[in-house]
Amino acid sequence: MKGNFYEANQAMLMDFYEMTMSNGYFQHEMKDTIVYFDMFFRSNPDDGGLAIFAGLEQLLNYIIDIHFDERDIDYLRSIGIDDSNFLEYIRNFKFSGDVWAVEEGTPVFPREPLIVVRAPIIEAQLIETMLLLTVNHQTLIASKANRMVRVAQGVPIVEFGARRAQGKDAATKGARAAFIGGCIGTSNMLAGQRYDIPVYGTMAHSWVQLFDDEYEAFKRYAEVYPATGSFLVDTYNTLKSGIPNAIRVFNEIILPSGHKPMSIRLDSGDLAYLSKEARKMLDDAGFDYVKIMASNSIKESTIQQLRDQGAMIDIYGVGENLITSSSDAVLGGVYKLVAAEEDKQIIPKIKVSENVEKITVPGFKKLYRLIDKVSGKALADLLTLHDEVIDESQPYELFDPVHTWKRTVIENYEARELLVPVIARGERVYEPKTLTEIQQYREREERRIWDGVKRIVNPHRYFVDLSQSLWDLQDQLLKHYSHRGR
Amino acid sequence: MKGNFYEANQAMLMDFYEMTMSNGYFQHEMKDTIVYFDMFFRSNPDDGGLAIFAGLEQLLNYIIDIHFDERDIDYLRSIGIDDSNFLEYIRNFKFSGDVWAVEEGTPVFPREPLIVVRAPIIEAQLIETMLLLTVNHQTLIASKANRMVRVAQGVPIVEFGARRAQGKDAATKGARAAFIGGCIGTSNMLAGQRYDIPVYGTMAHSWVQLFDDEYEAFKRYAEVYPATGSFLVDTYNTLKSGIPNAIRVFNEIILPSGHKPMSIRLDSGDLAYLSKEARKMLDDAGFDYVKIMASNSIKESTIQQLRDQGAMIDIYGVGENLITSSSDAVLGGVYKLVAAEEDKQIIPKIKVSENVEKITVPGFKKLYRLIDKVSGKALADLLTLHDEVIDESQPYELFDPVHTWKRTVIENYEARELLVPVIARGERVYEPKTLTEIQQYREREERRIWDGVKRIVNPHRYFVDLSQSLWDLQDQLLKHYSHRGR
Repeated sequence: MKGNFYEANQAMLMDFYEMTMSNGYFQHEMKDTIVYFDMFFRSNPDDGGLAIFAGLEQLLNYIIDIHFDERDIDYLRSIGIDDSNFLEYIRNFKFSGDVWAVEEGTPVFPREPLIVVRAPIIEAQLIETMLLLTVNHQTLIASKANRMVRVAQGVPIVEFGARRAQGKDAATKGARAAFIGGCIGTSNMLAGQRYDIPVYGTMAHSWVQLFDDEYEAFKRYAEVYPATGSFLVDTYNTLKSGIPNAIRVFNEIILPSGHKPMSIRLDSGDLAYLSKEARKMLDDAGFDYVKIMASNSIKESTIQQLRDQGAMIDIYGVGENLITSSSDAVLGGVYKLVAAEEDKQIIPKIKVSENVEKITVPGFKKLYRLIDKVSGKALADLLTLHDEVIDESQPYELFDPVHTWKRTVIENYEARELLVPVIARGERVYEPKTLTEIQQYREREERRIWDGVKRIVNPHRYFVDLSQSLWDLQDQLLKHYSHRGR
Repeated sequence: MKGNFYEANQAMLMDFYEMTMSNGYFQHEMKDTIVYFDMFFRSNPDDGGLAIFAGLEQLLNYIIDIHFDERDIDYLRSIGIDDSNFLEYIRNFKFSGDVWAVEEGTPVFPREPLIVVRAPIIEAQLIETMLLLTVNHQTLIASKANRMVRVAQGVPIVEFGARRAQGKDAATKGARAAFIGGCIGTSNMLAGQRYDIPVYGTMAHSWVQLFDDEYEAFKRYAEVYPATGSFLVDTYNTLKSGIPNAIRVFNEIILPSGHKPMSIRLDSGDLAYLSKEARKMLDDAGFDYVKIMASNSIKESTIQQLRDQGAMIDIYGVGENLITSSSDAVLGGVYKLVAAEEDKQIIPKIKVSENVEKITVPGFKKLYRLIDKVSGKALADLLTLHDEVIDESQPYELFDPVHTWKRTVIENYEARELLVPVIARGERVYEPKTLTEIQQYREREERRIWDGVKRIVNPHRYFVDLSQSLWDLQDQLLKHYSHRGR
């Protein structure tokens, strides 16, 4: 992560109601009310067993920097937010609260808080939209990349989707998230430059078309890039023209120049068949070390099928289906009020709903990953009230929060806290990590997850449990509101 | 459109191969070769009958501004692009070519050029990624919004998706595109501020939760926003608590203050049933003018079903399914070399492919919309060579480019050129339009399209034909390459 790239202040990127509610709180002299919000999502993308958390770095930069300028104040006035005391408050706005978050690259699960914000109500409210957007987007793409990488079983994947991304921010942050999820690099130079991700490229059809013939096009490219050129062989006819011309150029230009040719790229046709034929032709010509790259609207199921059909592909270039997560293009993360302070007491809050899955877990909470000390595998995640203590020397009874008779006792476990302090009293307290560190951390933490949970289709469910005290609290609040509401 | 918002230079947002090829052209002294590229897409999103072109304004700003700074040069050197003459060229890079484009808001169809670039090869190449990304994204979202608006049949739609957008750029440009497509506004204040789009908002569950009870929450909101407040009624129980509390506050606070209450919002449960019950309760209480807004992961099919079931919804708030176009999250626009100049002659280029649908239409071309002078309806679009003349006083024979025996003769038509000059010799020559002008233009042009083409499911195909001369050229080049390739 390099921090020296200017990004326009995005303070005004928020839903209008954040501002109208804030003005409302201000008018009612509630601006100093301390509240707690949880950010969480309700289901894994692609019906998967897990997601990979990403986007924290950009979120922290945003929260630390958020401020409004005169132009913003003028605009607010123009849309009816015109109380001069409130506008003065906005003019001096700075985030002064506390934030806890799971670390980027952590495998995460539905219904567990990934970010907890404790702040005066207006501050907590005004950051909602960008907080969600940033984490929803990068977590979605990191999770999709991670699925593809798991399907590819060791065949490396490069992110190639910039041109089909949903806007320029999606292209660059998407490349970042894809790297966290497990891609080895990106075609996007801006992502390479900003986040120190390896960049990859081959050639476009336009290069081949512009020369009088394909042989000439390859020859000219090889003259400039003898050691690093990747030759796109499908402009006219892959097997009859593309590969023979590439081999001719390897022999006539690259070898005599003292280099070894690197790779060819297939971008259309039957990639299983063509890759096998290409492999044979390259091997027969003495180029068994030349790699075969494949692209062309590749998605998870394509990778799976190509693998099953014995395709000889050494590297995938994956575009639109990764950068947009087209099979499931939304991570529906939400940000819900879970508590408010009254007279220094933390009062838990709940959102009841006619849709049961929309009911929230109340209170200021901690999130633990319970890790088996023998296998090193994660047993479950556990939500507790913030002041509960887990004594690792004692057995711990877990239970299903819906079917509470389903119980299990664990022993010899480590209870690792997943939410770490990232902002304290408005100041960043979390050291930035390089993207490579984050990728390695993700690899390590992913190994803690049982294979069943990592299965692409019909994964085994990973349990996110509540402590008995937390469950009791939720139950009590639900009973309270259900009596009042009906 | 306001132009005074700084956006970080996105010059480095490009696929690495654009730069390696450019260096290759430079090394082979081809930097002054003039080429022609077409931007087009191959199929309509959501299997629809048309798309709505958007993103031109941002594209023009990008092309006019593209330049590289020393930091970019350093980065290029670090990834092996280290020829000092080429880096000097990049240091002084400025786009000097010509661009033609269809106007934003135009209904457009597969395989027709939406943008034509004529420029020295390196300039044409280096803008590819951002050109595609910008137009692919905004055209996708404008088209999705347009579908939803057509399904809603007059019930207005507000774009509410910022928190689920794929990055901050997608949120704000997406709101812009959604307005072009037909939404009446957005919840995103930054989009409102930048593009002068009306902003809408209600309240969040957090507002209701933070007060001791729902009545108190509504009362406090009404005190601040008696005329514009929209009351979210589903935090506890829509019919038993939410709506009665809203009505009580309308009577106790809003009417006595001399205002009329505006609206309520439903955000969960059975929206058809709840909206009908809510309507009855509001009407019975004398609030037949209070509007009912509905949200909750609404998509096209939801709107259709709610309409069919007689839901009493006055306004939709549509979030993630619009802002990501989740049902079809990719518009696969491409940018293909179609010609190059040699000795001042325009030499057409073609990309043959084993996938027939990937074959390009060669040459520097014009695009006409043929409009029936009696009905005002669009009959077909027609691609011709750039120097062909259409004599509107004469009948014109159209034919299917695949089944060439299918022919029809049209008379009494207007042949309107769709590609207008937007950049000439590197200078912008196209007057910016306000977003409202663009939206109105889209409405007008959409009326030219027959209803069958605008059908949501199984639409009638709109024809994009080739002139005889253009068809002959393509046929000749295909025969040429097919002989060489096999």
